[in-house]
Amino acid sequence: VLTRIDHVGIAVRDLDRAVELYERRLGVRVTAREKVVTEGVEVAMIPLGESRVELLSPLGADSPLTKFLEQRGEALHHVAYHTADVDAALTVARSAGAEVATDRSRPGAHGTRIGFIHPKSLCGVLTELVQDDGQPRS
Amino acid sequence: VLTRIDHVGIAVRDLDRAVELYERRLGVRVTAREKVVTEGVEVAMIPLGESRVELLSPLGADSPLTKFLEQRGEALHHVAYHTADVDAALTVARSAGAEVATDRSRPGAHGTRIGFIHPKSLCGVLTELVQDDGQPRS
Repeated sequence: VLTRIDHVGIAVRDLDRAVELYERRLGVRVTAREKVVTEGVEVAMIPLGESRVELLSPLGADSPLTKFLEQRGEALHHVAYHTADVDAALTVARSAGAEVATDRSRPGAHGTRIGFIHPKSLCGVLTELVQDDGQPRS
Repeated sequence: VLTRIDHVGIAVRDLDRAVELYERRLGVRVTAREKVVTEGVEVAMIPLGESRVELLSPLGADSPLTKFLEQRGEALHHVAYHTADVDAALTVARSAGAEVATDRSRPGAHGTRIGFIHPKSLCGVLTELVQDDGQPRS
């Protein structure tokens, strides 16, 4: 069962410029920046209620995000939903014919577990599932 | 000031098929469907926590969504943020160099007021601002 939108990911070319645009034009505040080397991205996080916006830029030419930016340009990249059990959600999706990146969840940042459903299985939207560690977020 | 993600809009070709895929593969539930003639779309709404997902399909060939689907295919279409004052948020965005669809908010569905910021002003993301009427949602 999905409980909320965990975050929306936006692919950007220049993270400094994107942070400045979002802060000035939307009046929001980036509270953390982080390099997620395993995903090949640098992330700037904007908390909004129970969700957040993540601005994502590629860490290098071999980042999966580099190819996305070449093909689509800057754009919405994925939606992530919070769930209490990523493995159970992946099983539901797979049994209903969805293509999942991996059958089982894998570790994400900050003790989370994550899984991905292929865009072609959900109307063109790369969909992430996130299960946190039960600890409060700072 | 933006308080939360109001909704994420996903452009789909066939609303019946999209509803079935999302319900079966993500285990979510569409609680309402609505034709928004002024916007040229039919919408299926999936409540999730304080936000919702909106599946959007074009009502006719002259819908703005028809052009989007031709150019991009099914994909994430826009992000909408809730704010207490759309006009104030539009003023902030405009004074920081963003291109807005209209200088002032306009009426949306269910007594809301809405405004739009052009994708080129926010890293390729069509951004909607929503101010509700203060009434609880069903």
